[in-house]
Amino acid sequence: MSSHIVVFLPDGACLEVESGQTILEAAKAAGVAIDSSCGGQGTCGKCKVVVSLGQPGGRPGDSLSGEELENGVVLACQATVADDLVVEVPLESQRGELQILMGRAEVAGESLQADTSLASRVTADMEPPGASDDVSDGERLLASLSASTGDSFPQVEIDLAALRALPPMARENAWRVDALVGDFGGEGRVFDVAPAEGREVYGLAVDVGTTTVVVHLIDLTTQGFVDACASLNDQIACGEDVISRIIHAQEHPEGLVQLRDAVRATINRCVREVAGQHGVAPTQLIAAACVGNTVMTHLLLGVDPAALRREPYVPAIKTTPVLRASDIGLDIHPAAPVHVAPCVSSYVGGDITAGVLATALDRSPRLTLFIDMGTNGEMVIGHEEWMMCCSCSAGPAFEGSGVEYGMYATVGAIERLSYDPESDHVEWVTIGDARPRGICGSGLVDALAALLRAGAIDRAGRIDLGFPSRRVRVRNERPEFVFIWGEEAGRSDDISLGEDAIQNLIRSKAAVYAGAETLLESLGLSAGDVEQIMVAGAFGNFLDAESAVTIGLLPDVPLERIRFVGNTAVAGANLALLGREARTGMEELAGRMTNFELSVVPRYMDRYVSGLFLPHTDLQRFPSVASKLELRT
Amino acid sequence: MSSHIVVFLPDGACLEVESGQTILEAAKAAGVAIDSSCGGQGTCGKCKVVVSLGQPGGRPGDSLSGEELENGVVLACQATVADDLVVEVPLESQRGELQILMGRAEVAGESLQADTSLASRVTADMEPPGASDDVSDGERLLASLSASTGDSFPQVEIDLAALRALPPMARENAWRVDALVGDFGGEGRVFDVAPAEGREVYGLAVDVGTTTVVVHLIDLTTQGFVDACASLNDQIACGEDVISRIIHAQEHPEGLVQLRDAVRATINRCVREVAGQHGVAPTQLIAAACVGNTVMTHLLLGVDPAALRREPYVPAIKTTPVLRASDIGLDIHPAAPVHVAPCVSSYVGGDITAGVLATALDRSPRLTLFIDMGTNGEMVIGHEEWMMCCSCSAGPAFEGSGVEYGMYATVGAIERLSYDPESDHVEWVTIGDARPRGICGSGLVDALAALLRAGAIDRAGRIDLGFPSRRVRVRNERPEFVFIWGEEAGRSDDISLGEDAIQNLIRSKAAVYAGAETLLESLGLSAGDVEQIMVAGAFGNFLDAESAVTIGLLPDVPLERIRFVGNTAVAGANLALLGREARTGMEELAGRMTNFELSVVPRYMDRYVSGLFLPHTDLQRFPSVASKLELRT
Repeated sequence: MSSHIVVFLPDGACLEVESGQTILEAAKAAGVAIDSSCGGQGTCGKCKVVVSLGQPGGRPGDSLSGEELENGVVLACQATVADDLVVEVPLESQRGELQILMGRAEVAGESLQADTSLASRVTADMEPPGASDDVSDGERLLASLSASTGDSFPQVEIDLAALRALPPMARENAWRVDALVGDFGGEGRVFDVAPAEGREVYGLAVDVGTTTVVVHLIDLTTQGFVDACASLNDQIACGEDVISRIIHAQEHPEGLVQLRDAVRATINRCVREVAGQHGVAPTQLIAAACVGNTVMTHLLLGVDPAALRREPYVPAIKTTPVLRASDIGLDIHPAAPVHVAPCVSSYVGGDITAGVLATALDRSPRLTLFIDMGTNGEMVIGHEEWMMCCSCSAGPAFEGSGVEYGMYATVGAIERLSYDPESDHVEWVTIGDARPRGICGSGLVDALAALLRAGAIDRAGRIDLGFPSRRVRVRNERPEFVFIWGEEAGRSDDISLGEDAIQNLIRSKAAVYAGAETLLESLGLSAGDVEQIMVAGAFGNFLDAESAVTIGLLPDVPLERIRFVGNTAVAGANLALLGREARTGMEELAGRMTNFELSVVPRYMDRYVSGLFLPHTDLQRFPSVASKLELRT
Repeated sequence: MSSHIVVFLPDGACLEVESGQTILEAAKAAGVAIDSSCGGQGTCGKCKVVVSLGQPGGRPGDSLSGEELENGVVLACQATVADDLVVEVPLESQRGELQILMGRAEVAGESLQADTSLASRVTADMEPPGASDDVSDGERLLASLSASTGDSFPQVEIDLAALRALPPMARENAWRVDALVGDFGGEGRVFDVAPAEGREVYGLAVDVGTTTVVVHLIDLTTQGFVDACASLNDQIACGEDVISRIIHAQEHPEGLVQLRDAVRATINRCVREVAGQHGVAPTQLIAAACVGNTVMTHLLLGVDPAALRREPYVPAIKTTPVLRASDIGLDIHPAAPVHVAPCVSSYVGGDITAGVLATALDRSPRLTLFIDMGTNGEMVIGHEEWMMCCSCSAGPAFEGSGVEYGMYATVGAIERLSYDPESDHVEWVTIGDARPRGICGSGLVDALAALLRAGAIDRAGRIDLGFPSRRVRVRNERPEFVFIWGEEAGRSDDISLGEDAIQNLIRSKAAVYAGAETLLESLGLSAGDVEQIMVAGAFGNFLDAESAVTIGLLPDVPLERIRFVGNTAVAGANLALLGREARTGMEELAGRMTNFELSVVPRYMDRYVSGLFLPHTDLQRFPSVASKLELRT
């Protein structure tokens, strides 16, 4: 095998690679982040790079235009290293830091006590032993801790490792030590001891998303939020949605291990980054609360998810006992307790349990519809007395996948957008006020609503080529609407929305709306009965309720009933980290939820097809939208 | 470094070793077992070998006679390899298989239920999942187990490893699997699953003695004893008694790790041997109950025992939560539960807790004195209502150490002995009916009693050189009494008892007797109040009560009150392995025992000095012995 030098611009990163590797692989090895949402299949077109020197091998990529080919554009996942290369990564292909969705605004956790953290540091001031006081060091520690831990734990035990460390440490530190105490399902365990130096301890709240992993760093002493970090889930290389991940686990001999390791590596990378920025050592991270959908939960634990897509769709695991960090390879204190949010069914997971907890749906007297828009759309309807839940394959369009200029809610993503047909002007706001790199979920909802309101698209999502604006054009034989001109954004191409992208978005919103409608119908309810709709998900920092109703993503209810609640999964993880009431509450509410399997209801498919219009085939279901559209006409 | 060939006879084992190694080290490497109770210090003189070819280096050994030196005798621990050597290991230096002290005869375990084994195999016949039955695999397993485990465990959890194994296994085996369920302090945990093939499962009862490690293999299905194995504790190389082991741990940088690894290696060797003989794989060994004195418990767990010999003599650990085999490096199923018997104080350990449980002292209405003669003499006085315990440094003389022809209770050890002065004849019985290799504890008690009764020694233990028998002689300027002639035993030397050995034995028995006396006195009791005396220990398969009273080891009570109960430590471990009532009972009784610290009672030293006669300075304390001795006079 020969090897070649590859230089990446503008980073200037440079490395020697074996010939035959893809440019994407080389970039990964060089630490250059290139966007890629299809996992290197050559289909998403997000990893376009320009080879400015040298002759790449492989194929440039099927979807490229003649002009692009002429300019040296290739897909990094398809072109290979066959020569010394200089590769330019354009702004739009650079994968930026992910914007963090804090999900804290709407947390109803105030009604839950932050009573017993998953782990805490407790200082023990022990009485030194005497002739008439010969209790063992271990018992002495427990006796001294009991004043602090007695309310939380009827019984505390000591890990062997802590027992080993205790005797010399107690004597060298005048019988004053800090004990790390974990809550293992109501049983306390001292899992480490240290000299009583008041070393800060931290916990992690982890949202293990199909697409994005979000990690919050929490100060366990003050219970305050410190910082957060997010990253694309490395598992994306094995498939975009949960079904393709399950298939990957089945079809590759090492598939399960690969997926398990990929998600662990993603979490550990985030942990390293966020902890490193605050000078927090791994051993100061003494607890983690993880939340994921059922498939992600299986993969995180290394449990085969095969049964999840085999009738009768039974999960291997719903409730997980509190684990140790080393059990699942988290690079924190190896004996730290790890809480994993319980799942309800194969496709309603711990993210929903956490969301219900965080929104207090289970404790509310008001009939609430909770929708979590991730790669899967999961939803719950109910109140304090009953809850019913279901899941539908929304697909990742609102996360930016399958949409040419779509992107995750990260720095440079357009998250709010409006269009004034009179002046032909587009107003936009990006996350981080950065140069626009694409459009994230909330911006896509706004964009679709704006086009519909302006009449630039019809109710089937087709672009009106006669629309009186130069923004409407045909590129590569496909009609599109340009939102941001390249020069305006300081980039070489224009940011537009084409008909393919619009169809993907319509399919996503139809799946979610049909799910909500079917769920409500099964209970003899209509949208009007719902007292509040809470929408969670990775749209961006906000979601415009009116836009969401306009495109028919949400039912047409008075807008004040709709609230965007952000990332409730990580919010629930925060609560689980800090309070036992939250942890037991999650388990209890998971047991109370009734799962409704949409896939066995033929009516769901009818509803879905009816939803493939904007806002819907049946305009009577969207009277407020209908009146506005009529106004326009 | 040059290397040389060493051949060991009669084994014929042969290996190449670096020059400079001791012959003992070379023998160990060659798998040739040479006796050595001083740990290679050159003091015990048990590792004599004959170099028949080649010139050894190092020193031959200070204690050797001129004749021995001439005949090529060296101490294997002092002489080194400096040449190609042929080394003959005489019978008396070969370390035989240790005789197992079953300790089962007197087990009062019948009154304890073998209710919930520390671990068991439970077959789960699960209902296959259906559309209306979507509980997870984990819950399904637990539901199916609950019929079998419900009585034992209010709650059962599943280890992550078992959860990982379950989904494919359940589906490939028609939802029929064997679960291994451990009792972790009342909480059940499934720690492994296997196809339901009815594979046998076994447990271990382990007596972790200062000198000897005994392992019983128990069939957990039938709860029946299968076999046993014993071995000298490898820690002997770091010191003979617990104090020298603690010192070793303190004075050597890696001392604690060395001691920990040595005892683990010893146990694992026994386990391998006994399991191997019965074709039992390590993963079929699914539980272990370990019993040891407080120091051995610390060392087994790898906990620093330094505080045990520092005022106020506080153990680091008394009660240990149920561990996993991998926590302490046992080569059995890594997740198997390991129970460690709770200790009472620094010098009254889990061996005594186990002994009290096995003898049912704690449940008896009769006032009982229980004496466990190990390297430490530990004892308990009490009954169902109260118990008091103490410990004295008996030393290892009755285990054969510090006694020239003394040996452990193993094959070839003379365990019963009588002498008829009229005929000058000695009757003897060896363990395993083998050729006599030395005298074990019970034989030594008999020997001392026989010499006293015959008048061959006076009450101070001095040999009467005028005694009319050719058995009395002077060798190397020291008087001795020959019990077995070499030709009679098929060996080159005679088996005798010299005055040094007699003094060591007297010191040991005096320490034990003084301990019992002081303990009784502290309670205002006398020996006559004691309704039964139970003697446990590694004496041999039996102990002659009359001999024990004759030499003043035990108080002069009617002989029918004295019972030899064998190895109660391993008996207690058996009970702990098989019953939860035993495990909780041990913990409860350890908490009930009051420790009495002999070392702080000045009177103990007086009693000890008074005991340095046979049977005692004060003959009035031993009226039955006095009358027999007078009869003789």
